[in-house]
Amino acid sequence: MARFFMAGTNLLKGPTAIIRGRDAEHIQVLRIRPGEDVTICDTEGKDYKCRLVRADREEAEVEILEVTPCKGEPDVRVTVLCGLPKGDRVDYIIQKSVEAGASEIVFFQSARCVAKPEDPYKKLERWNRISEEAAKQSGRGIIPKVSWAPDYGEVLNIAVHTELPLFMYETGEREPLNTVLEANKEIRSAAVITGPEGGFEKYEADLARIAGLHICSMGERILRCETAPVVAVTALMYATGNLS
Amino acid sequence: MARFFMAGTNLLKGPTAIIRGRDAEHIQVLRIRPGEDVTICDTEGKDYKCRLVRADREEAEVEILEVTPCKGEPDVRVTVLCGLPKGDRVDYIIQKSVEAGASEIVFFQSARCVAKPEDPYKKLERWNRISEEAAKQSGRGIIPKVSWAPDYGEVLNIAVHTELPLFMYETGEREPLNTVLEANKEIRSAAVITGPEGGFEKYEADLARIAGLHICSMGERILRCETAPVVAVTALMYATGNLS
Repeated sequence: MARFFMAGTNLLKGPTAIIRGRDAEHIQVLRIRPGEDVTICDTEGKDYKCRLVRADREEAEVEILEVTPCKGEPDVRVTVLCGLPKGDRVDYIIQKSVEAGASEIVFFQSARCVAKPEDPYKKLERWNRISEEAAKQSGRGIIPKVSWAPDYGEVLNIAVHTELPLFMYETGEREPLNTVLEANKEIRSAAVITGPEGGFEKYEADLARIAGLHICSMGERILRCETAPVVAVTALMYATGNLS
Repeated sequence: MARFFMAGTNLLKGPTAIIRGRDAEHIQVLRIRPGEDVTICDTEGKDYKCRLVRADREEAEVEILEVTPCKGEPDVRVTVLCGLPKGDRVDYIIQKSVEAGASEIVFFQSARCVAKPEDPYKKLERWNRISEEAAKQSGRGIIPKVSWAPDYGEVLNIAVHTELPLFMYETGEREPLNTVLEANKEIRSAAVITGPEGGFEKYEADLARIAGLHICSMGERILRCETAPVVAVTALMYATGNLS
């Protein structure tokens, strides 16, 4: 069933809801007719099963039939923090992390980043639209926020304020990811830090270690920078019982 | 360290090895000089640490320094079977499945496939090159074979000849993937069947069920056809202790 979020100019008022802007256009594009059903998510984990009453390119009105908790929402909140990669790898990381179950995605400039955006904040609107599309398509109950961290200190700060902060590293002394996760199946929040194309400098890993993060290995296979986040989020979903 | 496979025209003879063709060119492109080291994998799980003796565009000779088992190779053999998706999603599935640890990838035409290739066998060379590149880059000990199954019967037949045949389905009566995997941590082979953009027809799932496959859910989130294989392979690697 087509899925929309109560975001932007959309309105939930009493027994009906008003859908505007891109979502209203989308309803036209999908040729959804009055009498047909759509799902509207309140972006806080509740789904509203609705029936279309009227629709044009500007606005659609729907009648609310039923309110249920959104089943697609994991019960662990995973924050993905990535050293900014090049080009469409960013889009890919956002889309796949959201599908896999991440609740927030933060990009940052790390020592070996090849991509050096003039003004990363300009990209946030586009990045967040990719997240919204992926959240709609995969049936998430929230729209994971995509943001930019101005420095590595803030990245570590975000991570250590979760129950299980993880730093994915390809070399040196590391804990096996599944050992760490098996010992922490009950966590309700976690952070995963992954690097850009060239990986991390040793001092970046050392700082993470000092800050108290788990320095983790995901096996001897070298994962591309755009693959590591989806693999790490999937492992977290599996370990916490959110892949069933 | 640059990594090559003893495949095609490459030769392992006694204390030295000869690298030819694209790999020899690749050594030139990477500007690897005599005296520098490369890793050559015998595609059967053994790594040869080698030192470059001489190289030109046609041929490179290396001296074998050390032979070790390839650490990047999982100890469970996972076969991914996918209803053929459109365009570059195929490339993506091959690359990410190989990185995640799949040992074989098989595409097939399922009822809802949008992509209808005239001659899928013509694509095998290119598909297998993508697998080889991903295997090199991620440090695999084998080159996972990519093939085409002419019909759904063969797909099910390949699956049931593994210890744990899984059919990923988005609806109906299913077993949670992590319940199935937690009960089968010791397996050494598995198969994962995933659908194309439109998913599977009910009769395809029914046939899989009759054939004895586990019909599995990967949670309530709807995964795109190119995301499901990497998520399923990652869950299998995690459950069997190959993500550490």
